[in-house]
Amino acid sequence: MSTDDTTETNAEASTSNCGGATAANTETESACGASSDSSSASGSTCGASSNDENEVGARADDFETDPGKLVTVGLGPGKPEGMTARAKAALADAEHIVGYRTYVDLLPDEITDDAEDIYSTPMCGEVSRTEEAIDRTLAGNDVAIIGSGDPNVYALSGLALEILESKGGSADAVEFEVVPGVPAAQSCGARLGAPLVNDTVSVSLSDHLTPMAEIESRLHAVAAEGFTIAIYNPWSRKRRENFRTCCDILLEHRAPDTPVGIVHGASREDEATMITDLETLPELGEDEIIDMTTTIIVGNEDTYVFEDRMVTPRGYETKYDY
Amino acid sequence: MSTDDTTETNAEASTSNCGGATAANTETESACGASSDSSSASGSTCGASSNDENEVGARADDFETDPGKLVTVGLGPGKPEGMTARAKAALADAEHIVGYRTYVDLLPDEITDDAEDIYSTPMCGEVSRTEEAIDRTLAGNDVAIIGSGDPNVYALSGLALEILESKGGSADAVEFEVVPGVPAAQSCGARLGAPLVNDTVSVSLSDHLTPMAEIESRLHAVAAEGFTIAIYNPWSRKRRENFRTCCDILLEHRAPDTPVGIVHGASREDEATMITDLETLPELGEDEIIDMTTTIIVGNEDTYVFEDRMVTPRGYETKYDY
Repeated sequence: MSTDDTTETNAEASTSNCGGATAANTETESACGASSDSSSASGSTCGASSNDENEVGARADDFETDPGKLVTVGLGPGKPEGMTARAKAALADAEHIVGYRTYVDLLPDEITDDAEDIYSTPMCGEVSRTEEAIDRTLAGNDVAIIGSGDPNVYALSGLALEILESKGGSADAVEFEVVPGVPAAQSCGARLGAPLVNDTVSVSLSDHLTPMAEIESRLHAVAAEGFTIAIYNPWSRKRRENFRTCCDILLEHRAPDTPVGIVHGASREDEATMITDLETLPELGEDEIIDMTTTIIVGNEDTYVFEDRMVTPRGYETKYDY
Repeated sequence: MSTDDTTETNAEASTSNCGGATAANTETESACGASSDSSSASGSTCGASSNDENEVGARADDFETDPGKLVTVGLGPGKPEGMTARAKAALADAEHIVGYRTYVDLLPDEITDDAEDIYSTPMCGEVSRTEEAIDRTLAGNDVAIIGSGDPNVYALSGLALEILESKGGSADAVEFEVVPGVPAAQSCGARLGAPLVNDTVSVSLSDHLTPMAEIESRLHAVAAEGFTIAIYNPWSRKRRENFRTCCDILLEHRAPDTPVGIVHGASREDEATMITDLETLPELGEDEIIDMTTTIIVGNEDTYVFEDRMVTPRGYETKYDY
């Protein structure tokens, strides 16, 4: 499996997915190949920056119309059946849908057919793509920014608000709204059984936007406590070292036989699930099952395996007979 | 607001919700007032333990039929629009639906009308209720255990597998499946803007099944790192001290002006949202906005407030101009 082929499960992690194969994750806007496919014969009213790099710096004041509405929508695990009814309704209401191409491809036809315009980019450019979404909103269009999982979890809701603010826009004026979705930790946890029943932490191993020293410090802190741990963005070709370091830290604090669940490409054709243990995890770093589409779930000291399912007891067994 | 009136937002936290007003959370099965409402004229084939406390200890071998299918289904934030299409389909397929009464009441009529039987209990008895669900499955019925949020997050998927195992049942034979839902952290995070964009931890303050010393240790560990923190089950009348201790620990590690978001009763009629800061949080412990239906989200050192919305930057601003 090529590491170029990334980004579905950890859709939320659009940054690191975006540059899964390039550690520096340099964003070359002109290489993005963004496409704006008008699906209505009458065309659409795009934002100031649409296909015009010179105007990317547009500010709220530059637009003469009242702004439209802006929603960030989480698609959940990937397939349409994983979307909430509210997410579907929000997309049906949106005039423009903006997202990474892989997620746009996940949308049901009735949604893409109804949209006035779909603006998608391949694996790069989430900053310019989000700015495009903001500009389209400020130009008067109702816009939905999509991503898999939840729009908060390693995703673009925060960036959307940051860019809106930087342009002098108003979150109230655009009726900014977040439509939550099922995060990868939960959709992958479900595939593994019941691993995330108690206090849980999610940590991304991508050091594109967070220094590795901070990631290591966080891993040490939580591995020494009873948290189950969901690891996002565990591996990419250019930063294999992060995965190895993570395994070392986990093994420093937890028993070698601690159950570990691995879900690769959830909801994709190449979906694969494995339950292993912490001792075996490091050698899987070069295996196909671990790449940027993988979520890894590390049990706590109580987690055990029952018929290929991870179970983290919540503590009922200490108080009840069953 | 009475603390007897608990349990919607943190549906996942069914334990502590269950005994929100009684710190000891003693489970009196006979007081549960479980009801089994057959909605089909032909009645239903219930499990061995149905309404018969003497048979609660039934084992898989005691049932002569092939077992049915067992799914745990997350309803998401509460209203039907927050359910995924997959959750709705799983409930439509189930012959028996088992859950806490408040969640059963959230189901759309078309689902409850179609079910052969609904087994619901009021605020107690998640162990006996789950055992009832297992027995019904072993007796040959297709059963769905419901809860709000995600069925893994402080919920009953783990307990279901534990009880199934203790009865000598097989997860493969019952085709055990978890249908994920949007957890309270994400549905409440969405209401607050974009607070949970980066590495995040969820911690429950209920010490019913986890010793308070462990909870304190976990809080110290994560508060000293850059995690945003989702606090489940923050307060009940009988364990006010846990909330105060939590505030003290957070203030030991984080600045008094750290933004804090509070969501009470998400998707309920009495839903309320507040954005405040860490310094103010302790005095809100006795306020109506904080009870067992509340989720509290604590920002990290980068979190800020923009037009009544919490924003946790992911770090793009360190690499990109916008």
